[in-house]
Amino acid sequence: MNVVVQKFGGSSVADAEKFRLCAERVAEAISAGERVCVVVSAMGDATDDLISLAESVIDSPDKRELDQLLATGEQVSIAMMALTLKGMGINATSLTGAQAAIVTDGVFGRAGIVSIDTRRVNQILEAGGVAVIAGFQGVTETGDITTLGRGGSDTTAVALAAKLGGRCEIFKDVDGVYTADPRVEPTAQRLNTVSYDEMLEAAAMGSQVVHPRAVEMAKRFSVPVRVLHSHRPRGGRAQRDQSDSTGTWVGPESGMEMRAVSSVVLKKNVGRVSLRGVVNRTGVQSEVFGPLAAAHLPVDDIIQEDDGPNTINVTFTMDRKDLKEATPIIHRIAHDIGAAAVRIDNGLSTVSAVGAGMRTQAGVASRLFEALAGAGVKVENITTSEIRISCVVVDADGQRAVQAIHRAFNLHEPTAGTVADAAAAAGGLLESKPGVAAAR
Amino acid sequence: MNVVVQKFGGSSVADAEKFRLCAERVAEAISAGERVCVVVSAMGDATDDLISLAESVIDSPDKRELDQLLATGEQVSIAMMALTLKGMGINATSLTGAQAAIVTDGVFGRAGIVSIDTRRVNQILEAGGVAVIAGFQGVTETGDITTLGRGGSDTTAVALAAKLGGRCEIFKDVDGVYTADPRVEPTAQRLNTVSYDEMLEAAAMGSQVVHPRAVEMAKRFSVPVRVLHSHRPRGGRAQRDQSDSTGTWVGPESGMEMRAVSSVVLKKNVGRVSLRGVVNRTGVQSEVFGPLAAAHLPVDDIIQEDDGPNTINVTFTMDRKDLKEATPIIHRIAHDIGAAAVRIDNGLSTVSAVGAGMRTQAGVASRLFEALAGAGVKVENITTSEIRISCVVVDADGQRAVQAIHRAFNLHEPTAGTVADAAAAAGGLLESKPGVAAAR
Repeated sequence: MNVVVQKFGGSSVADAEKFRLCAERVAEAISAGERVCVVVSAMGDATDDLISLAESVIDSPDKRELDQLLATGEQVSIAMMALTLKGMGINATSLTGAQAAIVTDGVFGRAGIVSIDTRRVNQILEAGGVAVIAGFQGVTETGDITTLGRGGSDTTAVALAAKLGGRCEIFKDVDGVYTADPRVEPTAQRLNTVSYDEMLEAAAMGSQVVHPRAVEMAKRFSVPVRVLHSHRPRGGRAQRDQSDSTGTWVGPESGMEMRAVSSVVLKKNVGRVSLRGVVNRTGVQSEVFGPLAAAHLPVDDIIQEDDGPNTINVTFTMDRKDLKEATPIIHRIAHDIGAAAVRIDNGLSTVSAVGAGMRTQAGVASRLFEALAGAGVKVENITTSEIRISCVVVDADGQRAVQAIHRAFNLHEPTAGTVADAAAAAGGLLESKPGVAAAR
Repeated sequence: MNVVVQKFGGSSVADAEKFRLCAERVAEAISAGERVCVVVSAMGDATDDLISLAESVIDSPDKRELDQLLATGEQVSIAMMALTLKGMGINATSLTGAQAAIVTDGVFGRAGIVSIDTRRVNQILEAGGVAVIAGFQGVTETGDITTLGRGGSDTTAVALAAKLGGRCEIFKDVDGVYTADPRVEPTAQRLNTVSYDEMLEAAAMGSQVVHPRAVEMAKRFSVPVRVLHSHRPRGGRAQRDQSDSTGTWVGPESGMEMRAVSSVVLKKNVGRVSLRGVVNRTGVQSEVFGPLAAAHLPVDDIIQEDDGPNTINVTFTMDRKDLKEATPIIHRIAHDIGAAAVRIDNGLSTVSAVGAGMRTQAGVASRLFEALAGAGVKVENITTSEIRISCVVVDADGQRAVQAIHRAFNLHEPTAGTVADAAAAAGGLLESKPGVAAAR
């Protein structure tokens, strides 16, 4: 059975007309002979509206009851999607997370999927119907409704694709993953393919296309993922496999040569905290980051450097919006650990270059720094991973930095991509035909 | 365990402030040492809004999917009620119909309750918590969500009370059942007690206090029901049993003397159809009412009278709003059965006097007709049951007819009631104390 799980986000199903456009994507897949499982998020701002409703009666809503409330958002969407499909003559059956037997742990608000019993879904698919499943939600062994937290619907879709042995299509209001945000760099190109690791790094550094949690799961279970535009038609059967050049495939790295840099990501609103002249005794790092974690204030990159004999500077970045709440805590930490000085900046951005080719190609960093220097961008901090280089720059330099890196690595050239044949590599779930990707 | 099931309708929980007022009713019951199970309907117009949403994508929504959609209305309410209670420091847990194991048949849109497994509810109650349960919904054996149709939430509440061996409080935006609609007859008195049968007849004839389906169930399982105002405080422990004079008890008839007439109900917007000069052959009645039933046009009272040798007149009433749709069908029926004439009126009302005392007291009908004659009201048609007399009158006479009957049977006198001790009669679930009712 050739199964595709099609996931539509909240902005893709914000009203009746948008449901219809999404339903056309389902109809296209059916015409191509595929069995379709649809995963939907809550309509538009429904989740935020429900949170506001809860907060109208209590300041800090109980997490179980909030999940009970929020789960109605996706339940409305699945019924609406099933009704829309039926209106187009397509046999569809909606299933809540509980009905689809998506069993989670009991961590309300950010539950993890434990297991999925796909019998009911398979019955629907085998009878030639479309199963429309609520994203973002599951049920505990004791029958309590849970929500999966951020990235939940993407995760539901990938988990179902993994379990059904199918592939996953993530529909967005963009038509794929780009070498850079086209609003920042107008020559940005859509990537035909991107690797799981590149997607993970890009997502962690601010790209909002597919949630990293879902990419992690896709990587673990080798689920081929494609990012597509929810409201744009595609071609027929011939164009639905790897030779289809619409959207962006997310898959494993192939043995073919990787680009050193496949995309450049700009993250604005970065705050930076520097604790200077800290005596480096055992455990001092946990004294810094423990209180921030306890206050649920997420920290991004961390840099530690020497500042003299047995003295260090600890610098970290965090969302600017968290900085106000964090400031008194930071000053208390600085006092407790005896830091010589505290410096807090809030006018910064992070520019990240991501590319699986960095693993094997030398000189990528120097080429990048040369580009930034040529553009007159001063680099405030640097952090790297195996396939990513991130630079903290002042806000005013952010766009210029992206453009300089984009140009230096020739990302404005068409047919950019880093994975030769994601789908074929993922275990032959799709036909492998010579096509655009193979021709690179 | 002294259990009370408290049911709050949609208009009682239309916004955050109203949830708070209802939660105060729960707090009162807890203070009185009772175990409380709450049943709620969807907030305000939520159900109608969801139906409109479904109709924005398809004209005749599939019934299973519509139930999946509508069930979210009550799910929102249970979470909101549980959160409101928690905000007041009351331990509460919400349960959907499925979570409360309210198993129904598979007739989507108007499912019937098959069984309730109260284990989860009992766990919550035994742990000292409040179980907040979604009215109007259940789940089939195969896990599909159903709705119970009209009167569904009242029915959920009574069914739970029956199963838990408790009593049922139906909260409304009125403080009980009245001898007549106070807008029609300003001297109308709140009834302290009314029998199941009287309630059924009144509900069938237009009273909208408790749905007849729920009253039927209450009667079958001897569940004591009390109708109360959702937003008005009551007293403490001493006033929560039969001696409590707030609201209206609905219960079995006692052995004590019944009032001949306990209430007068006015139903406006009555249409009347008369098929005259019909040859009375076997099965002619089904030729009249079959096509109307097939078109889902409900008929109320039916009168058949002789119009000559083997010739009859068939007259029936129906809602005026259905009359337009029914008219072409009626003319086709008249043609098919060879009726000599058809007469359709749409300016009529039904005035009904209901009282369990009619079973035993003679002369009630003549006293009623005398009152109408004295008020100059012309009676167009009469139908009766064992405990009800209904007269069809022209709209303009409706209010005057109600007032005349109300006066003739002294219903303006306080402490009107027909059931001496509904709660005590229903199996000693409540303490029986001398009080207002016993003094009558």
